[in-house]
Amino acid sequence: MSVRALASALPMMEWARLYHRDTLASDLVAAVIVTIMLIPQSLAYASLAGLPPEVGLYASIAPLLLYAVFGTSRVLAVGPVAVVSLMTATAIGEHAAIGSAQYGTIAITLAFLSGTMLLLMGLLRLGFLASFLSHPVISGFITASALLIAAGQLKVILGVKIEGQHFFELVWGLISQLGKVHITTAAIGLSMVAFLFWARRGLKPLLLSWGLPTRLADALAKAGPVAGIAVSAVLTWFFEWHQTGVRIVGSVPAGLPPLSWPQWDMALWKELAVPALLISVVGFVESVSVGQTLAAKRRQRIEPDRELVALGASNVGAALTGGFPVTGGFARSVVNFDAGAQTPAAGAFTAVGILLAALLLTPALYYVPQATLSATIVVAVLSLVDLRILRITWAYSRADFSAVLVTLLVTLAAGVEAGLIAGVVLSLMLYLFKTSRPHIAEVGLVPGTEHFRNVLRHKVRVSPHLASLRVDESLYFANARVLEDRVNALVAERPQLAHLVLQCSAINDIDASALESLEAIHQRLSDAGVRLHLSEVKGPVMDRLQKTDFLMHLNGQVYLSHFQAVSDLAPEMVN
Amino acid sequence: MSVRALASALPMMEWARLYHRDTLASDLVAAVIVTIMLIPQSLAYASLAGLPPEVGLYASIAPLLLYAVFGTSRVLAVGPVAVVSLMTATAIGEHAAIGSAQYGTIAITLAFLSGTMLLLMGLLRLGFLASFLSHPVISGFITASALLIAAGQLKVILGVKIEGQHFFELVWGLISQLGKVHITTAAIGLSMVAFLFWARRGLKPLLLSWGLPTRLADALAKAGPVAGIAVSAVLTWFFEWHQTGVRIVGSVPAGLPPLSWPQWDMALWKELAVPALLISVVGFVESVSVGQTLAAKRRQRIEPDRELVALGASNVGAALTGGFPVTGGFARSVVNFDAGAQTPAAGAFTAVGILLAALLLTPALYYVPQATLSATIVVAVLSLVDLRILRITWAYSRADFSAVLVTLLVTLAAGVEAGLIAGVVLSLMLYLFKTSRPHIAEVGLVPGTEHFRNVLRHKVRVSPHLASLRVDESLYFANARVLEDRVNALVAERPQLAHLVLQCSAINDIDASALESLEAIHQRLSDAGVRLHLSEVKGPVMDRLQKTDFLMHLNGQVYLSHFQAVSDLAPEMVN
Repeated sequence: MSVRALASALPMMEWARLYHRDTLASDLVAAVIVTIMLIPQSLAYASLAGLPPEVGLYASIAPLLLYAVFGTSRVLAVGPVAVVSLMTATAIGEHAAIGSAQYGTIAITLAFLSGTMLLLMGLLRLGFLASFLSHPVISGFITASALLIAAGQLKVILGVKIEGQHFFELVWGLISQLGKVHITTAAIGLSMVAFLFWARRGLKPLLLSWGLPTRLADALAKAGPVAGIAVSAVLTWFFEWHQTGVRIVGSVPAGLPPLSWPQWDMALWKELAVPALLISVVGFVESVSVGQTLAAKRRQRIEPDRELVALGASNVGAALTGGFPVTGGFARSVVNFDAGAQTPAAGAFTAVGILLAALLLTPALYYVPQATLSATIVVAVLSLVDLRILRITWAYSRADFSAVLVTLLVTLAAGVEAGLIAGVVLSLMLYLFKTSRPHIAEVGLVPGTEHFRNVLRHKVRVSPHLASLRVDESLYFANARVLEDRVNALVAERPQLAHLVLQCSAINDIDASALESLEAIHQRLSDAGVRLHLSEVKGPVMDRLQKTDFLMHLNGQVYLSHFQAVSDLAPEMVN
Repeated sequence: MSVRALASALPMMEWARLYHRDTLASDLVAAVIVTIMLIPQSLAYASLAGLPPEVGLYASIAPLLLYAVFGTSRVLAVGPVAVVSLMTATAIGEHAAIGSAQYGTIAITLAFLSGTMLLLMGLLRLGFLASFLSHPVISGFITASALLIAAGQLKVILGVKIEGQHFFELVWGLISQLGKVHITTAAIGLSMVAFLFWARRGLKPLLLSWGLPTRLADALAKAGPVAGIAVSAVLTWFFEWHQTGVRIVGSVPAGLPPLSWPQWDMALWKELAVPALLISVVGFVESVSVGQTLAAKRRQRIEPDRELVALGASNVGAALTGGFPVTGGFARSVVNFDAGAQTPAAGAFTAVGILLAALLLTPALYYVPQATLSATIVVAVLSLVDLRILRITWAYSRADFSAVLVTLLVTLAAGVEAGLIAGVVLSLMLYLFKTSRPHIAEVGLVPGTEHFRNVLRHKVRVSPHLASLRVDESLYFANARVLEDRVNALVAERPQLAHLVLQCSAINDIDASALESLEAIHQRLSDAGVRLHLSEVKGPVMDRLQKTDFLMHLNGQVYLSHFQAVSDLAPEMVN
């Protein structure tokens, strides 16, 4: 195997060969910053997924290492992510109770299935399938998921217990339980939320005003959330708030990630198949869009089909080391990028950092209040809420607006899986509906030019003997009959008609149904004494028509340009 | 209500006002011929649907009358039809045993539901929905249904008993039961098949050679099947074949169609909803294509949305008079057309003829062997088998071929409902797949012209500073990323690139996702120091873009023609 072949098999070879001391320094600095940020995030997302905190650390080690080997993005950081964690909780919730051993096993199985699907999709080059998730559907879904997560975490922050998973149930539960709020918990949680919101904008200027150098201020500002969590833990320990009912993380087992294995249970796999697929697709879409955005800033590229393989390997890695479904996260990848990571080695160094945390740092997590972790989640996900998309799509296109709205509402009211499926199905149906009613314009000659325009919009020349129709859509089964109807109507209205010319400049394809329709149109026109002509037929369409009898039987001609057709058939229009 | 408004509400007013003696004569002659043909067909299709023979007569009376009032085709004959009868048998078979009272009630309920759906679709103008059944799917479905019907009737003709409904089960059953064939039944049935095949071509020439006038020979030839059935009944009576185990029609109650009522059982309705919808759509498609073909021959038109209402009324009529689902049949409509029917009054006269048959003729049906009825079905449906469509679509387009093949095989192997659904879903997926991978050509200037062509196919002029891409598809969510990838690849390859021009002549729509992709492309090009321009943007697309910020932020220009863009941006290419 040549070096080139190996590099093509393993993207890491591309950057590993050129690795030098400067790159190492940049990558190490980035790794330290990202490690500090990832520790609380990993704990928080594990609890969002309904799993013990150490699982969040485990899920951030093997996936990062595997992505470093297989990934094509230089800066993507793979690990637990908010929306995927919520989807994980939803999927497992139907099969096991939070806290049970079975819950953890199903999380591992889900990561394994999702990883296998991603690997298969990558090997079969099915990355394009993700594009059937339209931007409106993704926007609606992410916003709804973020609201759903925030509402779910709010009950932890307020220290109340609520049954129910859907948004409106959660909101109603919060309102009706307001009297039972646990005051200390709420005080801790809400101050943390306030601190985090302030820290985003206010911390760095404050540190700078204290005279700290920019680079240090920057790094410390990023460590703000960690400092906040540390302070809340110290206060809880000192005032013994956990004795008054404030829930804390408690003892987290220290040690290496365990070797784990999915549950080989076909009935379970069958039930997890749809959630695993949805998790795979959502994770892939999130990861690729982050990766592409960051790669473009350095004029680099990522390869979606190889990203599938890398994410697949990461998830299988997560499954084998006691983790749960992971993907490339926006927040951590941006931090990695801003911190100057040059190669995926930065990710590998981060993995080592988190491994050290899992080995040494877990006792320090004992007194961390659950409410502060929830606060970090709420602040993180609220930045994902984007309701402007409703206004933007409303102005741009009603179809896109409906896709956003339906995805948003169904996700809120019936959960992530139903919402995503409803959005995809609706957006495909709207697209098909649109293409099934193509714009067909009757065109006439703009005097003094060779241009043809819609007779309803422009002053153009027409002839009673010749009609020109321009179809603004590829012809396929769902819209072929529309053209038939239009031609039938035209012929019934114009007794003097002798020629019909179809201007085909916007017809990118004609399928077998549309061809049969054209033959039917041709037959009916023949029966009625009208000749059918085509103009401006595209190369690939013409190639295919030439394989059929249609052109042979055609009683009219195929013209290169529409002007040529009209000059020939109705010279009185041209002169 | 003015006459015009009434005519628009009831299509019959259009022809009824102009009715005169010549039209009456033509219609009466046509009615007599069609009545003779319809009697055995109605019996046969009732037995195909698993219903007693008289139900076939009932289903041919009220529907014909109602279609005469509401229909827009002058010659369509509505009644029991082979494929719809098979679908009816399949749908009822899951809920009741053949011969039970419940079976008949469900048939009535199915006709009622199907009629109501057709009426609603007509009132909501949803006729276009039928176009989502592509020609390949319909062809595959009709051929498979015909084979399925023929195999099912062959067991009656051979007098064997076979469990199983699917084609391969039936064929295997026939082969394994060949030793148990009932010889007399098989002799009657197979001679009838042979006679019918011969009668189609041979009977008229024979009658003419006997010196009969053409018109009479024509009419008698059409009565051939009826004569065959009569002869088989007389022979059965004379030789008492029914005593040896030949199954005969037996006593058919004489009388008017009964008043009947669907079963008001929501649970049943829910289970019948999908079959009723499929029956409605298939019936509508069959009826409309027959109606359109015949109308066009006389330069008449039919209106699909009003056809829905007419077929809906016909089916509700069938439900209220002890019938089962009906639609406009090909064979009988063509006979009606050829026999010179001028208006739907011919249909009304046919209804009277069949009513007389139901009142007076039923004793004559006693000795008709079931095998001869099955023989008429086999001969009728085998003319629907069209396997050439496989060869034709194979040559034309692999996507269309797969749609035919999958519909055909799934219908044969898993039944009519599964086959139809598989075909529709597959053809939509193939279409979406095709549009998700649009043809994107890099184009260059054909020297000495203002035309631009694919750089890979033609000798054209290009510039290292300017790239021209032509996208041959509307941009929407499923293909937007393809353009992003293509542009990313292009920019990564061409360090000297300063301008990218998208030629938009074949872009009929840009949805919100594609707009976001364009914005992302624009952002990445800006980051890379490349300017993005558009040329030949269509009016409706431009209208919509002008509602957005995109054009305002665009770092390039929008040119009317691509030539203009290139002259401006890379004048060295033009000179």
